[in-house]
Amino acid sequence: MNDVVQKPIRIVILGGGFAGVYTARYLTRLLGRRRDVEVELLSEENYFVFQPLLPEVAAGGIAATHVVNPIRELVPKVRFRCCSVAAIDFERRQVMVSQGAGLELVPVAYDHLVFCLGKVTHFASMPGVAEHALAMKDLADAFRLRNHVLRCLELADIEPDLEAKRALLHFVVAGGGFSGVETIGELAELVTRSLAYFPRIDPKEVRFSLVHAQARILPEMPESLSLAARQILERRGVDMVLGARVRAASPSAMYLHDGRALATRTFVCTVGTAPNPIVEGALAQGGFIQAQHNGRAISAFATERTLECAGRPGYWAVGDCAGIPSPTGQGLCPPTAQFAIREAKTCARNLIAAIDGTPKSPFAFRALGILASLGQRSAVAEMFGIRLTGFLAWFAWRTVYLAKLPGWVRRLRVALDWTLDLFFPRDITQLQVFQHQHLHVHHYEPGEAIVQQGQLGRELYLILKGEVEVSANGGGKRVRLGAREVFGERAVLEDTRRNATVCATQAADVLVLSRSDFHAMVKNLPVLSDYFAELLRARHPDAMPAGPAALDHLPPTPGMAPAELRPS
Amino acid sequence: MNDVVQKPIRIVILGGGFAGVYTARYLTRLLGRRRDVEVELLSEENYFVFQPLLPEVAAGGIAATHVVNPIRELVPKVRFRCCSVAAIDFERRQVMVSQGAGLELVPVAYDHLVFCLGKVTHFASMPGVAEHALAMKDLADAFRLRNHVLRCLELADIEPDLEAKRALLHFVVAGGGFSGVETIGELAELVTRSLAYFPRIDPKEVRFSLVHAQARILPEMPESLSLAARQILERRGVDMVLGARVRAASPSAMYLHDGRALATRTFVCTVGTAPNPIVEGALAQGGFIQAQHNGRAISAFATERTLECAGRPGYWAVGDCAGIPSPTGQGLCPPTAQFAIREAKTCARNLIAAIDGTPKSPFAFRALGILASLGQRSAVAEMFGIRLTGFLAWFAWRTVYLAKLPGWVRRLRVALDWTLDLFFPRDITQLQVFQHQHLHVHHYEPGEAIVQQGQLGRELYLILKGEVEVSANGGGKRVRLGAREVFGERAVLEDTRRNATVCATQAADVLVLSRSDFHAMVKNLPVLSDYFAELLRARHPDAMPAGPAALDHLPPTPGMAPAELRPS
Repeated sequence: MNDVVQKPIRIVILGGGFAGVYTARYLTRLLGRRRDVEVELLSEENYFVFQPLLPEVAAGGIAATHVVNPIRELVPKVRFRCCSVAAIDFERRQVMVSQGAGLELVPVAYDHLVFCLGKVTHFASMPGVAEHALAMKDLADAFRLRNHVLRCLELADIEPDLEAKRALLHFVVAGGGFSGVETIGELAELVTRSLAYFPRIDPKEVRFSLVHAQARILPEMPESLSLAARQILERRGVDMVLGARVRAASPSAMYLHDGRALATRTFVCTVGTAPNPIVEGALAQGGFIQAQHNGRAISAFATERTLECAGRPGYWAVGDCAGIPSPTGQGLCPPTAQFAIREAKTCARNLIAAIDGTPKSPFAFRALGILASLGQRSAVAEMFGIRLTGFLAWFAWRTVYLAKLPGWVRRLRVALDWTLDLFFPRDITQLQVFQHQHLHVHHYEPGEAIVQQGQLGRELYLILKGEVEVSANGGGKRVRLGAREVFGERAVLEDTRRNATVCATQAADVLVLSRSDFHAMVKNLPVLSDYFAELLRARHPDAMPAGPAALDHLPPTPGMAPAELRPS
Repeated sequence: MNDVVQKPIRIVILGGGFAGVYTARYLTRLLGRRRDVEVELLSEENYFVFQPLLPEVAAGGIAATHVVNPIRELVPKVRFRCCSVAAIDFERRQVMVSQGAGLELVPVAYDHLVFCLGKVTHFASMPGVAEHALAMKDLADAFRLRNHVLRCLELADIEPDLEAKRALLHFVVAGGGFSGVETIGELAELVTRSLAYFPRIDPKEVRFSLVHAQARILPEMPESLSLAARQILERRGVDMVLGARVRAASPSAMYLHDGRALATRTFVCTVGTAPNPIVEGALAQGGFIQAQHNGRAISAFATERTLECAGRPGYWAVGDCAGIPSPTGQGLCPPTAQFAIREAKTCARNLIAAIDGTPKSPFAFRALGILASLGQRSAVAEMFGIRLTGFLAWFAWRTVYLAKLPGWVRRLRVALDWTLDLFFPRDITQLQVFQHQHLHVHHYEPGEAIVQQGQLGRELYLILKGEVEVSANGGGKRVRLGAREVFGERAVLEDTRRNATVCATQAADVLVLSRSDFHAMVKNLPVLSDYFAELLRARHPDAMPAGPAALDHLPPTPGMAPAELRPS
C-alpha cells in the first residue's frame, strides 16, 4: 500500500425530509462501492417522517411509529449526524453544528453542500396561536393532537357545564390546503368512531369547523374536485368558514379577522409558515441569489436547472428551499414531496457529474397527479388527467401512498394498520407520555376571564403584556393591573378558591407559574421572597403575618396538593 | 310506569390497574342486565396498562399502544371517569375528585367503595434519583426509556470524547426483581440489535450493569432459577453488581452506598416505592385497620377473607393496597397481577352478595407459576412445579402473556409485533414528542463539575442546597457559593463560553433556568431585573454598562440562539 491516500470528496446534506433523504439514497445508489466520495447527512431528528400520512396518525388510523423510518435504516451507507446547525462557515467550507448537550460547536467539513431544508411553523403574527393552537407539521404534532382530542372527549363526557362541554366538542382546523382538509376529515372520523365509548356525549353536540381564507378549499386542485371535497365534508357535518382569516387564539376560543370568535378547546392551525432560519442566514451572508416567484423575492436559493445554486458552484438546493425553474418554462417547481423526490434524483446525478467532470443534465419532470384524503374511506384525486371522488379516489390514494412509503417493514405495518382499522374500533387510548410543562405563556383576548372568583386555583400569573381588571362579588371596586404586575398570588400560598375574577381588558399575555415552580424560586432567591412577602402584606393584610418571614410559612416545595393525590 | 324509581346502588372503584379493571369486568358480567346497581370506575388515565410487558415496550419489541387498552373498551357498561381523587368524605360517602382543569372539586357518591390502588414511585430517600433516573412503572416510563437509549446511541456515534462516549454506552438498572431483570435483559437486546446502524460504536464499548441489594437476583424465584437467570444475563455481558444499594444519582453517574460510582447517562431505577397517598389518607382518617406483614404494619387495608375491609362494611380492597390473609394460612397474598385478577373475581362476587344479602365466599387461590423474561428469546419459569430456562421458558412466557392480554385486537397486534420482530431489525426511531422541559433541578455529588470553563453555556443556575466552588484557569482565586446563590449568569446575557469551572464541593441541588425562561421572568418582574443588574455589575464590572438599565440590552426573549437554528 504505497499509494498516497487521497482524502475523499465530502458531500454534506442538510435536512432529513424528502429532499435530503432521497438525495442521499440516490447518491449511495450511484456511488456503489466508490470510496473517493463520502456523503454525510445532518438532521435534528434521527427519523424521516412520511408527512402525507400525518393526519391519519393524528386520527389514530396508523400508529405513530409506522410513518417514520430511522434515517440510518434508509441510508445505511451514508454517515448520519443527529445535530442542529448553528452556522455555516462559507470561507472554511464547514458547517458548525451543536450536538448532544451543545457544549461545543463541532465543525463538519464539506466540498459540496446540499440544502434540503423545509419551511418552519411561524405563528408570531397571530397572537396566542403559538401558545394555544396545535400545528400539523411533524410527528410530535400528530401525536399531541390525537391525545388532545381524546382528552377532550374524556372531559366532555363528565363536564356538567353545557357551555364548557360545547367548547370541548368543537374541533376547529384553520387552512383549507391539503394539510387542513385532510386533518379535519380525519378528525371527524376519529371523533365519530370514538363516540360509541362516551355514553354521555350526544353526537349532535359535536361540531367541526374548517376555516379558510379563500372562497374555495383545496385551491391547488381543479375546481370540480374542490367542490366535491367541500360537499363530502359538509355532508359529514363539517362547517365551512370560508373567506375568513385567523386573527388570534386564547385557551378557550379562536378569533377571526372579521370579528367572529369560535369557542373551542381544539384549534389546529395549518397556516403560518416562515422561511427556514438557516436558509435566511445563508441568503444573507453566503453570496447566493434569492429566487423570485411572480416577481417577488422568496426565501429560497435561485438554482440552475441542474439544481446547483446560481453563481455558487459546490452549493446545491433541493425541495422547498430551492427556486428551480419549472420544466414547463413557467415559474418555479412547486414545493411538494413528489417534486422533491424527482429533484433529489437529478441533484444526485449532477453531484457525481460535477465531481467526475462529466456533463450535467437539467431537471425535467411533470406532476403525475394530485390527491387529498377526506377520511372515512373517501378522497378526491386527479391522476393522469382522470378525476376521481369518493371511495375510488380513496382507494387510489392508499395505493399510491403505500407504494411511496419507503421500506418494506413500514409498508407492511401500515397495510396491517389499515386492514385492522376496517374491522376493529378506533383506539381511544389517550397516551399521557408528556412531562408536565412548567412555565408557560397564555394569551387572552379582551373580555375573556383568566380566573373566576370561587374557582380553585394553583397558579400565579405575571402579566407580560396588556391589561387585566380584577373585580370581586360581581361589582364594587375594580382594580386594573398592567405589564409586570402579578395576580393570583394567594393560590400559591394555600389551597384556596379565587377571591376575585380577573378579566383581560386588552389583549394580554400572561406567564403562568405553577405552585411548585413558584416555591422553588421564591424560597431560594431572597430578593423574590422579600418582594412577594411585601406584595402579600400590602394586598392581604389580614391573611399574613408581617415581614419577609411570612413566606417561611409556605408548605414544602412540591407539596401534597390535591392534584398529586392520584390513584395509580 | 307508576313504580317509584329506586335510586340504584352505587359501587365506586378507585384505580384502573389489574385490580380495578378486573373487578369492574367481573361485576358487569355478574350484573348482566340488572339496573339496580351502578358501577363507576375512577382513574387518572383513560387506559389500562399491561405492566408485565412494559420492559418489552421500552426495548421496542412491542409498540407502546399495543400493551394498553382503553378502559372504556374493556368495561363498556361501566361508567368511567378520568380524574384525580382529591379526598374521600367518609361521612357523606362521597369521593371528591378533580377533573379537567381542576377548577372545581366534584363529588362522586358511593354506597360501596372499592380500593384498587397500587404503590407509587418514591425516590426521595436517594438524592438526585428523582431528577436523573428513569423509572419503569408506567407507559410513559417505557416510552421515555426507549427514546432515551436511542438518543444515547445517536450521541455516542458522534462523540469525540472517549470518557463521555463510555458513559453514553453504559446502561445501568437498579433492582434485581422482575422489573429490573426484565428491563436489563430487554435493554441489552435493544442495544445489541441496534448497533449495526451505528458504525462508529464498537460493541466492546457497550456495558450493562445490574445493581441489586441482595446476593441473588429474582429472590421471589427458586434458587436454581435465580442462578440460571444470572448466568444467562452474564453470558450476554451484563455485569452483576450485587449486595450494593443505590445512594444517589447525578446527570452523569449513579452512586452506591459502598462508595462506588458508575459513570452512566442511562440509569433505570426499579427500586423505591411509597404507599399510595390515598391509601395513607384513608388509613389515617377512615377508621380502617392497617394490615400487618411479618409483625410490621404495612400501608394496606386489613381485609376479611371476603375482601371487605376489616370492621368497615361497604369498603373493599383488592390488589396491592389490600392485606388479604393468604389462603395457605400463612401471611398475606402477594401483590402480583396474578393474585389481583383472582381477588377481583372474589370481590365482585361478594359485592353482589352483600347487596343481595346472600352469603359471601372467602378468597381461595394458589399461584400457578412464576416467569421472568430475559430478552433475546430467553426466560426462566416455574409452572405447575416444573422449572424451565432458556428458549422453552421464553416460549411459555410469551404464550401465557398473550393469553392474559385483554382484548383480541391487542392480542393480535402483539402477536404481529412479535412475529415481525423475529424477521426484521429493531426499530431505532427516536421519537421526539416531548415538549422541552423548562425549569428543572439537577443534583450533583461532591467533586462533580456542573459547568466547565470554555464550554458553551445557555443556562443560569440557582443553588437550592449544598455548596459549589468556582475556579478559573485551573487555579488561582476560588470562590465558594452556597444556597440561594446564582452562577452562570453571563450565559443568559450573550452567546458565550463559560469563564470558570464550577464544581460541587458538597452534594448540591441546583435549579436550572433556560435562557428564554430567564428572560421572560427578568424582563417582567422589575425586582428581579434590578437584582440581576446589580449582580452582574458586581461580578463583571467590565462587561456591562452600570445600573438596572443594563438588562435592557438583553436580546429579545426566546432569542435566535444557535440551538434554534435547526434544519427541518
